[in-house]
Amino acid sequence: MDVKRALSVPAEKSEGAKDTTIRWLWGKADGADKFALRLIEVAPGGSTPHHSHPYEHEVYVLEGKVRLMGAAGEHLLEAGDTAFVRPSEVHQFVNAGDGVLRFLCGIPL
Amino acid sequence: MDVKRALSVPAEKSEGAKDTTIRWLWGKADGADKFALRLIEVAPGGSTPHHSHPYEHEVYVLEGKVRLMGAAGEHLLEAGDTAFVRPSEVHQFVNAGDGVLRFLCGIPL
Repeated sequence: MDVKRALSVPAEKSEGAKDTTIRWLWGKADGADKFALRLIEVAPGGSTPHHSHPYEHEVYVLEGKVRLMGAAGEHLLEAGDTAFVRPSEVHQFVNAGDGVLRFLCGIPL
Repeated sequence: MDVKRALSVPAEKSEGAKDTTIRWLWGKADGADKFALRLIEVAPGGSTPHHSHPYEHEVYVLEGKVRLMGAAGEHLLEAGDTAFVRPSEVHQFVNAGDGVLRFLCGIPL
């Protein structure tokens, strides 16, 4: 069993994203080999890439507002909202507020 | 892509736990087949079973205080803390506060 304060995990620049960092809360380095949990932070004006990949996302918004763009439209989400982005689905997370956007994002490993 | 308000997902009684409900935010019913994300709520005085199972937990505390009991001791966690419970590790989540305890809990599928 391991525990930590999420914001104590080093924030790494998220390659290909604008003003966005990623903290790997639990992943292969911790012995997690089925799925990873990451904390993503997007500064005001920032966004993740408009992209797709062969794995899904399971997302929970902790703080701030996000415009989640998909092929079929967009959703405005805030703290307490959750999203499932299917494998190979085009998506983008855009900070739609004046403050930091924080969300958890799970991916399979 | 699917989105929803986490608290709009029906809360089911968590079998074997005391004063605890579980909301399956994303699971097999939604097309998620690698891992599931659940929102667990424990009322004051409540707790999950002291048990183990062959799969891991990845946990993020959203609200309240939790005493996370393990074989090697216990941890007092609050909002913004995160935990990794390894496969087959004995564990129990006990509400250690005066209000509701809410945490996210990911499991492999």
